Amino acid sequence: MTYTQVLYTVNSGIATVSMNRPAARNGYTMTMADELSSALTEADQDPDVRVVVLTGEGTDFCVGADLSGGSTTDGVATDGSWQEPAGRCSRRIYESSKPVIAAIRGAAVGAGSTIVLPADYRLAATDSRFGFVFTQRGFFPEGGSAWYLPRLVGMGTASDWMISGRVFGAEEALAAGLVHRLFPADEVYPAAIALAEELIATTAPVSVAVTRQMLLRMSAMDSPHPAHDLDSRLIAGIFTSPDAAEGIMSFLERRPPRFPGTVPADLPEFLPW
Amino acid sequence: MTYTQVLYTVNSGIATVSMNRPAARNGYTMTMADELSSALTEADQDPDVRVVVLTGEGTDFCVGADLSGGSTTDGVATDGSWQEPAGRCSRRIYESSKPVIAAIRGAAVGAGSTIVLPADYRLAATDSRFGFVFTQRGFFPEGGSAWYLPRLVGMGTASDWMISGRVFGAEEALAAGLVHRLFPADEVYPAAIALAEELIATTAPVSVAVTRQMLLRMSAMDSPHPAHDLDSRLIAGIFTSPDAAEGIMSFLERRPPRFPGTVPADLPEFLPW
Amino acid sequence: MTYTQVLYTVNSGIATVSMNRPAARNGYTMTMADELSSALTEADQDPDVRVVVLTGEGTDFCVGADLSGGSTTDGVATDGSWQEPAGRCSRRIYESSKPVIAAIRGAAVGAGSTIVLPADYRLAATDSRFGFVFTQRGFFPEGGSAWYLPRLVGMGTASDWMISGRVFGAEEALAAGLVHRLFPADEVYPAAIALAEELIATTAPVSVAVTRQMLLRMSAMDSPHPAHDLDSRLIAGIFTSPDAAEGIMSFLERRPPRFPGTVPADLPEFLPW
Repeated sequence: MTYTQVLYTVNSGIATVSMNRPAARNGYTMTMADELSSALTEADQDPDVRVVVLTGEGTDFCVGADLSGGSTTDGVATDGSWQEPAGRCSRRIYESSKPVIAAIRGAAVGAGSTIVLPADYRLAATDSRFGFVFTQRGFFPEGGSAWYLPRLVGMGTASDWMISGRVFGAEEALAAGLVHRLFPADEVYPAAIALAEELIATTAPVSVAVTRQMLLRMSAMDSPHPAHDLDSRLIAGIFTSPDAAEGIMSFLERRPPRFPGTVPADLPEFLPW
Repeated sequence: MTYTQVLYTVNSGIATVSMNRPAARNGYTMTMADELSSALTEADQDPDVRVVVLTGEGTDFCVGADLSGGSTTDGVATDGSWQEPAGRCSRRIYESSKPVIAAIRGAAVGAGSTIVLPADYRLAATDSRFGFVFTQRGFFPEGGSAWYLPRLVGMGTASDWMISGRVFGAEEALAAGLVHRLFPADEVYPAAIALAEELIATTAPVSVAVTRQMLLRMSAMDSPHPAHDLDSRLIAGIFTSPDAAEGIMSFLERRPPRFPGTVPADLPEFLPW
Repeated sequence: MTYTQVLYTVNSGIATVSMNRPAARNGYTMTMADELSSALTEADQDPDVRVVVLTGEGTDFCVGADLSGGSTTDGVATDGSWQEPAGRCSRRIYESSKPVIAAIRGAAVGAGSTIVLPADYRLAATDSRFGFVFTQRGFFPEGGSAWYLPRLVGMGTASDWMISGRVFGAEEALAAGLVHRLFPADEVYPAAIALAEELIATTAPVSVAVTRQMLLRMSAMDSPHPAHDLDSRLIAGIFTSPDAAEGIMSFLERRPPRFPGTVPADLPEFLPW
């Protein structure tokens, strides 16, 4: 595919999806939203891609909705058929069968804060700053962020950030659990690549794909029983699974694993999603 | 309305609802529960009220159920028609379309701990102490606290506090995320007023009302899709919203916003609650 | 009952359930899973048992699935009728009407990490280490852990631990909220006994049984209303409850309580589980 506002590259199993409007500090547009979704789908369907790194070109991750675009109301409908742009990306990350590492520097405000919430990892620069600024603009939480944020940082912090709409820094984001680790700005993307390489070297793609879906979906059920039931079906399959055989052998032989299963080809057929 | 166990005052957009039985350390009664609920409803319906501060007269927030009252069984029924008193207040805060800031000093035990859980902010004194003491009294969690507490502090801490029923101090409450910030006892209420003034100066009433409901309701859904869907309907309306126009203009002009929308008059009609 | 891989003892109201394959570092087997479940049921039905301590003999809590067993596929079925072994224990803890304190030292990996998630308390040694290592073995999350873990440590940490499958130490487990407190290895079990004794001395058995079920079940509902409704029925019963009478009297008289109610005999009949 050809992208106009996103860079998409694949190297050694790692797809980098990068917002590419650095002159506009990656101001978020409808086009960018749809291209992020397409790039994530491309990565998801490519069996050679093991991990996705989501980042932005330039010194800012994303300053939020581009407020200059006059034509952004094209196709906007209030009948429920229209999807707001942050959700177009975050919904796609939610559905992803590849783990997503967000590498964030500078401003990550508005959509810049919300689209990373469904990612598996958020690595950030010490200069990064975040803001669910909707109440300060007369807007509303977007990208399903009202669902994600309390799960990440607890309801108390989520209320503070979303009711006040205030912008806050990297240290506060780290202390609350919004981001996993901080790095100097120039080291965030390399750290994301290093983490991706480690995941590729040590984990089974099918296991990772199922695990991330189980975390997102099963944790939201009204009891642990649906998780238990799915666990049992999955683990019943382990006894004849080439991935599990390799996992056990490599562990016993104290050597790196080489898991044969790929995603999406080898995902179990009975998954409920 | 006239209240006998609650003080209700409105100043500059801030409604202060204060439990007013200081001689009994604000021991919680059925009358107090119903008056708290009524005062919160009054604040909710008053378009001039932007923020509610919930506090108590004297040196204690609330020591829990008043154990002296002999007539408290009036109207008590076990057929499901009777609402226990902590829930009468906490359910009303849950439904509120105005943000609620709890200002807590001294003892906040039993009902004093549970009624503040649905608030948006909990500011507390360094001398404050909390306790979900039900197991130590042969009682049961009240005010929906079994639903709220794990969302605020995680299941591990919630289990510890609720199984043991022990009383704990302000520092532990802060570290766990139960309260947002600590202050010297005399500075808690002024800090709550200052926070309320900041919210009034910087945020759109309609956005705040919708955001607090989205956090409480959408985060409890079994997937992010209901939040996504509601986001889209709300954000589709932004393009013609006077509040959003003012939010964007004031941001671009780097001046304080003056949002025209009021609550409840300007709440969107299609909200599912 | 007679157990072959578990030790079961009762002293002064405390049932200790201990995995007893120290030579195999308590490698988890199907037999062990079923014996843990049976022992927990025995404790649950014994009115003299107030608290359960779950631990392991030797220097490790449990290194995870025993990988030596050739006959482990006996009875394994993929049609949904078979329950994987970690879930056989964790589901039983979820259902327990007695509080469960896990006392953990050394390795608590795989099943060793998952079976303790539904416990009320996790006390651990400074030498303990944890790992949801499934992705590194070609396995899948077990024991309903995808439901429990995000509730305990938030979704960000849960994703990190479960996607990477990495092993981590006691300090990280404490900081994230997975464990409640750390002790030198030899002091973990004594600390669990001391905590159990304190719970026995200060809390009402019926209140504790109901409270732990409310936390696990009501917190997963899509609103606080089911909790409110159950609260009201339970609290309506307090006015005629011998436990509540004793709770109030002992509090007013500043003496230790002696609650008459026992579990399971005196559990309310209308509980929805």
